[in-house]
Amino acid sequence: MKRISILGSTGSIGRSTLSIVEGYPERFHVAALAAGHNVQAAFEQARRWRPQLLSVTSVADAQDLQSRLQGEGLSEIEVLFGREGNVQVATHPQADFVVSAIVGIAGLEATYEAVKAGKSVGLANKECLVAAGELITAEARRQGKPLLPIDSEHNAVHQCMRGGRMDEVQRIWLTASGGPFLKTPREEFSSLTVEQALNHPTWKMGRRITIDSATLMNKGFEVIEACRLFNLPPKQVQVIVHPQSTIHSMVEFVDGSILAQVSVTDMRLPILYALTYPERIPSDLRFQVSDLRHLDFEPPDVNKFPCLRLAYEAAEAGGAKPVALNAADEVAVGAFLDKHIRFSDIPKVIERVLAETPKQKFESIKEVLQADTEARQNAGRQIEAIRSNSPLPHPASVM
Amino acid sequence: MKRISILGSTGSIGRSTLSIVEGYPERFHVAALAAGHNVQAAFEQARRWRPQLLSVTSVADAQDLQSRLQGEGLSEIEVLFGREGNVQVATHPQADFVVSAIVGIAGLEATYEAVKAGKSVGLANKECLVAAGELITAEARRQGKPLLPIDSEHNAVHQCMRGGRMDEVQRIWLTASGGPFLKTPREEFSSLTVEQALNHPTWKMGRRITIDSATLMNKGFEVIEACRLFNLPPKQVQVIVHPQSTIHSMVEFVDGSILAQVSVTDMRLPILYALTYPERIPSDLRFQVSDLRHLDFEPPDVNKFPCLRLAYEAAEAGGAKPVALNAADEVAVGAFLDKHIRFSDIPKVIERVLAETPKQKFESIKEVLQADTEARQNAGRQIEAIRSNSPLPHPASVM
Repeated sequence: MKRISILGSTGSIGRSTLSIVEGYPERFHVAALAAGHNVQAAFEQARRWRPQLLSVTSVADAQDLQSRLQGEGLSEIEVLFGREGNVQVATHPQADFVVSAIVGIAGLEATYEAVKAGKSVGLANKECLVAAGELITAEARRQGKPLLPIDSEHNAVHQCMRGGRMDEVQRIWLTASGGPFLKTPREEFSSLTVEQALNHPTWKMGRRITIDSATLMNKGFEVIEACRLFNLPPKQVQVIVHPQSTIHSMVEFVDGSILAQVSVTDMRLPILYALTYPERIPSDLRFQVSDLRHLDFEPPDVNKFPCLRLAYEAAEAGGAKPVALNAADEVAVGAFLDKHIRFSDIPKVIERVLAETPKQKFESIKEVLQADTEARQNAGRQIEAIRSNSPLPHPASVM
Repeated sequence: MKRISILGSTGSIGRSTLSIVEGYPERFHVAALAAGHNVQAAFEQARRWRPQLLSVTSVADAQDLQSRLQGEGLSEIEVLFGREGNVQVATHPQADFVVSAIVGIAGLEATYEAVKAGKSVGLANKECLVAAGELITAEARRQGKPLLPIDSEHNAVHQCMRGGRMDEVQRIWLTASGGPFLKTPREEFSSLTVEQALNHPTWKMGRRITIDSATLMNKGFEVIEACRLFNLPPKQVQVIVHPQSTIHSMVEFVDGSILAQVSVTDMRLPILYALTYPERIPSDLRFQVSDLRHLDFEPPDVNKFPCLRLAYEAAEAGGAKPVALNAADEVAVGAFLDKHIRFSDIPKVIERVLAETPKQKFESIKEVLQADTEARQNAGRQIEAIRSNSPLPHPASVM
């Protein structure tokens, strides 16, 4: 019986994790949950899963939830809130396995504490590896516990890696759908609208990650994640555009053999893999090989998608640069979604912030969070400069 | 240092194996060689590799070779011939690893003796698994020694299998190029010429295997081989047509993940894999992922290619049926190449022989060879019956 804590239980990955727990009651048990702002959803999860500990975002939400749980005769469920609540969920003594699925930089501290507490961790939070990958993977190695990737690409790589030893890996090939602008001429990038950018061809996702897919920055983040997770230099992590997203990624070995992983595009599959590793257990998440028809591939165009180049530079430098890359991208994407800057301005903002970010290695998550704050402030300044130098033809409302 | 014996050293696989030994002199050493009819090639291999033992086909060849070796001052190389020579090479006390690459039923006995002698064996001989797979794999399990497949499909499966345990495998997907008649209407099959059938789209191979690729019988043999090698029932071994032959095969696991293997179409790669397993060592046999463009897939048409269906039936029955399948096919293909029967008669001959083959399990290779002889005789009778009932429009010369 594996006892599980979930950071981000009311989000998409959290709910998918619980649907797997539901499907295999003899294997998995919920120890603790950290929910988000949705108190009703947190309340229903508490009623269904009876965790020992439930954390929500604010003190007000916690008080609300506690009284509702008392009304249901569930006062034995401990209720906490905020950063400290997340850390308590992540390090709960009853948990063997922690699913890290809080979105954004907010998930960093609790995930790091889970690793330090010797938990096996399933990673769905991108920032853990992009911004703090060096710290977190070093700690996991010290603890001798696995970090299991819960996203289709790195999970695919993890599976393919089983075909050989780490020192037999020549390179990783991350596949990229290419986003909605794969065939759009570069000259049109400055006039692309938010609506066009949000129209992703294969995946339905949140707004930021959809824009990150359109700029290929998301693939850039994945390059950094792969470098940290599999302890490889950036030149050993390559990207190939594969619009069908059928092959989720590949590993090339020194002898010239390549293993590729194929599966349905359903997040429950990497979650199941992470929860059961090193075992595999039966699921109904079947890919119909007999329905396979055509797979297409092409090399990525880094001139058209400069975010990918910037990610490689940040990956190579390490330390503060990937932190700045992520922070500046989040701010720039927000400004694009608010129609303050052009699509083609996103990489410009990031490039300027990166250039002004000092080379710096981190000893603690606190230092990572500090660098994140500084990069966000700088990104705000760069956006203002772009807006005053080259205002959009139809000025958007002020933030 | 791995000491290697090669059964079939002057054939294509044998020469490729020696080219790998040449590339890694610090890893591999040649212990013994069994050559074919080409005495000059055997002599040159003896001079280059200085094996302790060299076997050729006939006593006359052995005498010729021995005197030539004496002339070179190489009289310390023992020279043998025929069946006994092959067995001595296969069981040579100095050999750790035996490459089984004698074509046809002739390779059976020596390979079985190698397995019985506790050698690790690299299998490039199809008949070992099609005709005697139950005997040979049972013996390898008793010995606790690996049987490593040296052909692109099963080698790919072996690699993908590393992604999980044997009992976590849902099914194997063998890829098939589809042969030259993938798009040819079934109605035209009775008038296809030898020249058309020998024109294989992707691989350059011998005449029999080229025809076997055109009828999909070769894929049928591979289904049987996979069943024996990986101990799976036929329904867990599926075929998918993939004309580019880029993905060499796939393994689907119970959780829904599929691993696929990709590499250059060069036999040296599976040979290298088999020789170094469980390690992988660097090679220059690189597949250029960045050159990937399109991959196509479609289900096989068993109505158009009845040989595939016959192979499944033989795989299911086991024992004498796969022996008869292989023997009847070899005789029927020979008759087609000699223009005695039509392309569409090949499966008819095999089906009739199969129907008249009793269900029988074997205890020894001798019984396998006996059943093989009987099936060949029966195939000859079936061919005569077809020729007298429905002669070809342009009668070919009598055999």
